[in-house]
Amino acid sequence: MKLHHCVGARSFRPLWALEEIGLPYDLVMLPFPPRAHRKDFFAVNPLGTIPAFEDGETRMTESAAICEYLAARHSPGRLAVGPEEPEFGRYLNGLHFGEATLTFPQTLVLRYGRFEPPERRQPQVAEDYARWFLSRLKAFGEVLGGREVLCAGRFTAADISIGYALMLAEFVGLGDELPDFARRYWEGLKARPSYARALAAEARAAGEQGVSATPAPLGG
Amino acid sequence: MKLHHCVGARSFRPLWALEEIGLPYDLVMLPFPPRAHRKDFFAVNPLGTIPAFEDGETRMTESAAICEYLAARHSPGRLAVGPEEPEFGRYLNGLHFGEATLTFPQTLVLRYGRFEPPERRQPQVAEDYARWFLSRLKAFGEVLGGREVLCAGRFTAADISIGYALMLAEFVGLGDELPDFARRYWEGLKARPSYARALAAEARAAGEQGVSATPAPLGG
Repeated sequence: MKLHHCVGARSFRPLWALEEIGLPYDLVMLPFPPRAHRKDFFAVNPLGTIPAFEDGETRMTESAAICEYLAARHSPGRLAVGPEEPEFGRYLNGLHFGEATLTFPQTLVLRYGRFEPPERRQPQVAEDYARWFLSRLKAFGEVLGGREVLCAGRFTAADISIGYALMLAEFVGLGDELPDFARRYWEGLKARPSYARALAAEARAAGEQGVSATPAPLGG
Repeated sequence: MKLHHCVGARSFRPLWALEEIGLPYDLVMLPFPPRAHRKDFFAVNPLGTIPAFEDGETRMTESAAICEYLAARHSPGRLAVGPEEPEFGRYLNGLHFGEATLTFPQTLVLRYGRFEPPERRQPQVAEDYARWFLSRLKAFGEVLGGREVLCAGRFTAADISIGYALMLAEFVGLGDELPDFARRYWEGLKARPSYARALAAEARAAGEQGVSATPAPLGG
């Protein structure tokens, strides 16, 4: 299996899942954004986005989907929640929610508040989507209901999906605005040894491959 | 099972899946956006978003996740692709891609091009994300590779996820800019009887429940 990754980008999700399950993998580090710096990357992923993931004939580009795939194939009943389990729906919802609802809005905060050249920045849009993220996150507190993990009484790929959105919030500069429940939940997830192993793996690979260790959301 | 839905909104995905599988369900129609018009809806879904889906104790809010749930529980080997099938990864990727990569950008085109009051509109942002959507869609043409369905040689929940993004593109006003491959793919998906049944079901329920038949992306 091969994962194409930028430091601190959402491809951290599948990296974390690989470390949690303990699977062997090759980690290919790219400068951010790869579509600007590595034109040959389009041969790997026509979208030019990261992550890109290869497993035999399988090619995947959606970070939460890769976690779901790895969990279902290699960690059923543990990192994956199966269709026969009562909280299967809660698990799937969390996997999608972490990306579609909690991550995408933050990319707007980054784009129009940090990445665009000054004349194209849009402070109103950055503010609109910072509020949007924090409002959805606050409502998620009711869904989580004080649990330490989202579902099934164990750490699952859904926690990786949502956890990365909280990691990104810190990069984006919203860390101080996280509600208490979200901070506690995130501290609990970060305490897993697999999180530290994933951070160490990306730092080591960045050093070996001559790629900046600055996280992509901070400008790569 | 109960689905809370607005005409033409992404909750059309689970409605289509319910009709494709042939499951019994209650359809609750809401004016768009429900968080503005139906404050009591927050008791059903703390996020205030649609869809909201109820199945016994299960509560879900992510449209592609609900399709995946319905397919895995009620249509294995048909609308769902299982972990034992070679294109399982391609299936999961399509489910997530339809929403996170192809739908969210279009909500920005709607928000800053149509829904915000004139003084808060942002033509640049609407244009940025129309281009973003069309660029990702064009690259998806290489992934689809001329197939009539995304994966496993049959119509699956991944086609519903991606199909709705193309339905939304027509509402958004990007229908004329769809590449030929996308138009052919979408025409094929729309030809399924379940698509017509889902459209009929939402029209009938809107009439019975006194809700506007204008699709939400057109202003509800």
